[in-house]
Amino acid sequence: MKRVGLVAKPDAVSAPDALARLIDALGRRGLTIVLEKETAGLVPSSALPSALKPDLASQVDLLIVLGGDGTLLSMARAVGDLGTPILGVNLGDLGFLTATTLDEMLPAAEAALAGQMAVDERMMLAARLVRGGATLGEFVALNDVVITKSAMSRIINLRVAVEGEYATAYRADGLIISTPTGSTAYCLSAGGPILFPTMDAVVLVPIASHTLTNRPIVLPGTQRIDVTLMNDQDVMLTVDGQVGVHLREHDTVQVERAATRVRLLRFPRTDFFTVLRSKLKWGER
Amino acid sequence: MKRVGLVAKPDAVSAPDALARLIDALGRRGLTIVLEKETAGLVPSSALPSALKPDLASQVDLLIVLGGDGTLLSMARAVGDLGTPILGVNLGDLGFLTATTLDEMLPAAEAALAGQMAVDERMMLAARLVRGGATLGEFVALNDVVITKSAMSRIINLRVAVEGEYATAYRADGLIISTPTGSTAYCLSAGGPILFPTMDAVVLVPIASHTLTNRPIVLPGTQRIDVTLMNDQDVMLTVDGQVGVHLREHDTVQVERAATRVRLLRFPRTDFFTVLRSKLKWGER
Amino acid sequence: MKRVGLVAKPDAVSAPDALARLIDALGRRGLTIVLEKETAGLVPSSALPSALKPDLASQVDLLIVLGGDGTLLSMARAVGDLGTPILGVNLGDLGFLTATTLDEMLPAAEAALAGQMAVDERMMLAARLVRGGATLGEFVALNDVVITKSAMSRIINLRVAVEGEYATAYRADGLIISTPTGSTAYCLSAGGPILFPTMDAVVLVPIASHTLTNRPIVLPGTQRIDVTLMNDQDVMLTVDGQVGVHLREHDTVQVERAATRVRLLRFPRTDFFTVLRSKLKWGER
Amino acid sequence: MKRVGLVAKPDAVSAPDALARLIDALGRRGLTIVLEKETAGLVPSSALPSALKPDLASQVDLLIVLGGDGTLLSMARAVGDLGTPILGVNLGDLGFLTATTLDEMLPAAEAALAGQMAVDERMMLAARLVRGGATLGEFVALNDVVITKSAMSRIINLRVAVEGEYATAYRADGLIISTPTGSTAYCLSAGGPILFPTMDAVVLVPIASHTLTNRPIVLPGTQRIDVTLMNDQDVMLTVDGQVGVHLREHDTVQVERAATRVRLLRFPRTDFFTVLRSKLKWGER
Repeated sequence: MKRVGLVAKPDAVSAPDALARLIDALGRRGLTIVLEKETAGLVPSSALPSALKPDLASQVDLLIVLGGDGTLLSMARAVGDLGTPILGVNLGDLGFLTATTLDEMLPAAEAALAGQMAVDERMMLAARLVRGGATLGEFVALNDVVITKSAMSRIINLRVAVEGEYATAYRADGLIISTPTGSTAYCLSAGGPILFPTMDAVVLVPIASHTLTNRPIVLPGTQRIDVTLMNDQDVMLTVDGQVGVHLREHDTVQVERAATRVRLLRFPRTDFFTVLRSKLKWGER
Repeated sequence: MKRVGLVAKPDAVSAPDALARLIDALGRRGLTIVLEKETAGLVPSSALPSALKPDLASQVDLLIVLGGDGTLLSMARAVGDLGTPILGVNLGDLGFLTATTLDEMLPAAEAALAGQMAVDERMMLAARLVRGGATLGEFVALNDVVITKSAMSRIINLRVAVEGEYATAYRADGLIISTPTGSTAYCLSAGGPILFPTMDAVVLVPIASHTLTNRPIVLPGTQRIDVTLMNDQDVMLTVDGQVGVHLREHDTVQVERAATRVRLLRFPRTDFFTVLRSKLKWGER
Repeated sequence: MKRVGLVAKPDAVSAPDALARLIDALGRRGLTIVLEKETAGLVPSSALPSALKPDLASQVDLLIVLGGDGTLLSMARAVGDLGTPILGVNLGDLGFLTATTLDEMLPAAEAALAGQMAVDERMMLAARLVRGGATLGEFVALNDVVITKSAMSRIINLRVAVEGEYATAYRADGLIISTPTGSTAYCLSAGGPILFPTMDAVVLVPIASHTLTNRPIVLPGTQRIDVTLMNDQDVMLTVDGQVGVHLREHDTVQVERAATRVRLLRFPRTDFFTVLRSKLKWGER
Repeated sequence: MKRVGLVAKPDAVSAPDALARLIDALGRRGLTIVLEKETAGLVPSSALPSALKPDLASQVDLLIVLGGDGTLLSMARAVGDLGTPILGVNLGDLGFLTATTLDEMLPAAEAALAGQMAVDERMMLAARLVRGGATLGEFVALNDVVITKSAMSRIINLRVAVEGEYATAYRADGLIISTPTGSTAYCLSAGGPILFPTMDAVVLVPIASHTLTNRPIVLPGTQRIDVTLMNDQDVMLTVDGQVGVHLREHDTVQVERAATRVRLLRFPRTDFFTVLRSKLKWGER
C-alpha cells in the first residue's frame, strides 16, 4: 500500500486536527496522500493532490474515513466495484462501521498499512427504480433501501415479489430492505433482528405495519426482491438514509445483491459482539 | 330527539343511496333532518336544510355519520363541547368507531332515536402548539396527536415533560400520543398496547425508537404532557391523521385531556371485545 | 408514628449491619421497634420484641423493609387491609419499589417519621382459584398474577372473560395479569407497556403468544377478569413470582382489584420517571 | 423408488382410513410398503412388514408421514444421515412442514414417486449437552433447541459464546436457538424473525428477556454456539419441543449445524410464501 486517500466529515470540530496528525504520520512514512475534494478544504495550507469522491477510490490503495457511520456509508457507496479497503475512524463514540476512535487512529492506520487488520467483506444492495418499463435510477446501498410515506400520507400499500413470484403485501408506513450491515441501524429501531455482518442475506422489515402478523423476514442474498407501490400517496425511496427520490403509484423498486462487496478493516480483537455489547449496553442491569 | 344531522363520506359509492334511504325513514317519523353542507351535494333533489360541519352539531340532537372511522373522527372533533351523540355507520367493514354497517343502519337509527343504544363516552385530547411563548394553534384529537419526521429527515430528538417535570427523551422517527380510542389505530401499528376505550388514560408510543428501552408508557388522563422538538429537522404535527402543521426546533406541543368527551352510540350487544376479535382475527389459528 | 417494624432480606450480606445502625438511630429517638421474626435472627444480641410477618403490620405505624423489590413484595402482601406505610431500602441498586439505598437509609427513615415522604398508593390484585365451583385459594398480588406452562408442556389455551362476558382466548406459553406496579417487572420483559404506578388499571400480557395479533390490553382496575385453563397441561399459577399453585383443566382464576392499596413512601424529589431513566438507561446513546 | 415407509400420528382420528387408502394405492403400483411399528397398530389386518422408527429410514426410498408438523419433526430427527426424502401429509390444516393435506394425499404420493415434487433441503442442528467435561447427551433438531426455566424458577442467566469467543449473556426466561425451519414455530411466538427455509443460518431469540436491548440475532449456519447456564435454577433443555433434559448450573449446550439435511418434498407450485400467507392471514384486513 503506497497511496492513501483521506476523507473527513466536513463539519466535525475535531476533523482538521485529526487530518493534520494523520497527514504528518503518513507523510513521514513516504506514502502518497490524496485528499477528497471537500476534505481538502479542511487542510488549507496543504499542497496535497485532491480528487472528487467518485474518483478517489481508483487513485489509492487504502481509504481512511474520519467521521461517523454516515461519512463511511457515503464513501462506501462511491467505491463501487473497485474494492478499495476502508478504515473508518469515528470522531465520536465507537460506531458499527468505523473500526476505531481518535485515540487509536494512528496505530490503526499503521496496522492497516502493515496488513495487520482483519478485512470484513460486507454485501451491498443494488436498487433500480423502474417506472413504466423504464429505469429511472440505479443506487447502491451498504445499509438499506427504504420506502416510506410522508407525515400526511395515508398508509401505503406495497406489493412484494421474491424471485419474480408474488410473496406478500404490506400496509404500513414503509418498508426497510436491509443488508446485515444495516441490520443494526434503522432496521433495529423498526423491530428487525440483528444479522451477523458478513452474512449473505437481506431482511425485510415493515415500519409500523398495519397488519400485525407481517413480521420481519430474512431472505438469502441471492434472491431478487421487487417492491411495487400500489397506491397514490406521497412516498419516498431513500438509500442509506442519504439519497432520496419520490415514488409514484405503480413504481417498482428492484433490489438485489450488488456485484461487489465493501471491504472494511477492523482490529482482529474487536469482533462484532464487542461492538454490539458496547453499543446496546448488553449485560448491564 | 327531534332533529337529526346527517354526514356522509363524499366519495363513498354507497353514500347517496344510503342517505336516500335514511332520509326517507327519518322523514316518515316526522323528524327534522339537517344535512352537512358537503353531504347535501350527494342528495341533489333534496330541499332539506344544510349546515357547515362546525355548525351542524349545535342544530341537532343526534348525528348520524356514514363512512369509515376517518369520517367519524372528523365529525367528532367538530362537535366540540356540545356532546351531541354520534351514531357511526360504516360503509365498509365493521370499524372501531362506527357502531354498525349498512345492513343494520335503519334498525340502529331506530334504536338510537328510541334511546336503546349504549353510550360510550370517550375522552379526547386538547393539543396546543407553542412557539416562542405564543400559542400558534389549538387542536382536538379523538385518536391521537402525532409528531413525525419526514422521509429525508434524520432522527428527531423529543424532550417530554409530564406535569411540568422532565420525564424522558426520545430519539425516534416520531411520537404518538394516543387516547384509548386511538390505541387500536396508529398506536397499535407502532407497537403500542390496546386500552379499553372508556378509560381515562393516555399512551405514549415512540415510532421506530432508536433507544430500544424506550417502551410505550400509559399515563393517567389527568396528566399534562409537553413535547419539545430539540433539533432542526423537517417535522410535522398531525391530529387524528387529518390535520397537519410543520414544527420548528424548540416548538412545544402541550397535550392534555380535552374538557369534553365524545359520545358514541353502539348496540349494547356489540362490546369492545367483539370488535377486537373481529378486526384482529383473534382465535383463528 | 411511635412504633416501627423492621424486616430484612435474611441472606443479604449487608443486612445485619444496616439493621444495627437503624435500631440504634430509631432507639435514640425513643421509638418502639418490633422485628419481623426471621429478621430477629440477624440481630442476635437484641432484646427487641418480634412478630411473625402476618402479625407485624398490625403492631406498628411504619414498616421499614431492607432488601430488594422481592422482600418488599412479600411484606406488602402481608400488610393486607391495614394500610401500614412501607419504606423500602434497597440493599443493592435503586429498585422500582424501594425508595432509597443504604446511603440514604437514615435520612429516609427520619423523613418518614417526620411525615416528609410522599405516599404512593398502589393498587393490588385479589386472585381466587376456583375448581369445580369451590374456592381453593385466595391470593393478593402487588405485581402480578401469572399463569404459565412448564417447559415440556405444549401450548396452553386460556379463555378470558371480562366482567363476565367472553373477551378473548390465548394460545400461548402463559398470561401475565399485572398491576401498574408490576408493569415494570415481568410484564415489561414479555413485551407489555409501562403503566404510571398510581393508575387504577390492569394490563394483560400474553407470554410468547402463538396468535401474533394478541397484543397487550390495558383494562380499568374496576373490571373483573376470569381466566380459565382450557386444556390439560402442566400449568402453574404464580403470585408476584413467589407463591405457586398447580392448575388443572377447567380451573378458573378470578382476578379483581384488591379492596386495599399498598402505601409506599418515597422522597418527593424521586419521581417515577427518575427511576425509569435510571433503570432503563434512557437517554444514553 | 420401490420401497415406501409409512408413519402416522397414532391418535389421529383420520389416520387409519388414510393409511388404508394409501396402502391400497401404493400396493396396486407394486411398491414395497414398510410400516413404522406403532403405525402398524393402526392397520390391524395388514401383513405388511414393520420397523421401529430409528430403523425405518434405512429400509425405504421414501417416507410418507401422516399427521401434523410434530409427527414429521419426530420422523425427521430419526432419519439422521440417511437423507431419505419425506412427504408430509397434514391430517388437519396446511402445515409449515407438511406438503399437503388429505385431499391431495394420493396425487402427492404419485408425484413423489414420479420424481415430480420439489425437494427442500433443510438444515438441522446438532446439540451436545456437556457437564463437567463429559458429554451427557447428543440431539438433533429440525426446529429448535430451547433452554427454559420452570414456572417457579427465578430469571436464568445464560452465557453465550460464538465460535469459542464470548458473545453475549441473557437474563431471561429462556433462549431459543432455531433453524430457518423452526423460525415459524416457537421462535415467531417469542418475537423472532422469519427465515427463508432453505437458508443456512441460525437465529437466537431470548424468551421474555429482562434486558430489553437483547434482540434476536441471526448467525451463519457455520458458527458454533455454546450456551452455559450460569445460575442454579430449575431449567430444562428441549429439542423440537419433544425431548427434554434437566440442566444444572455450569452445564453447557453446544449447538452447531448437523452434518446432514432433511429432504422435504413439496408441490413445486406451493412455495414458502403461499404457506406463510395462508398461516399468518397476510393481506386480510
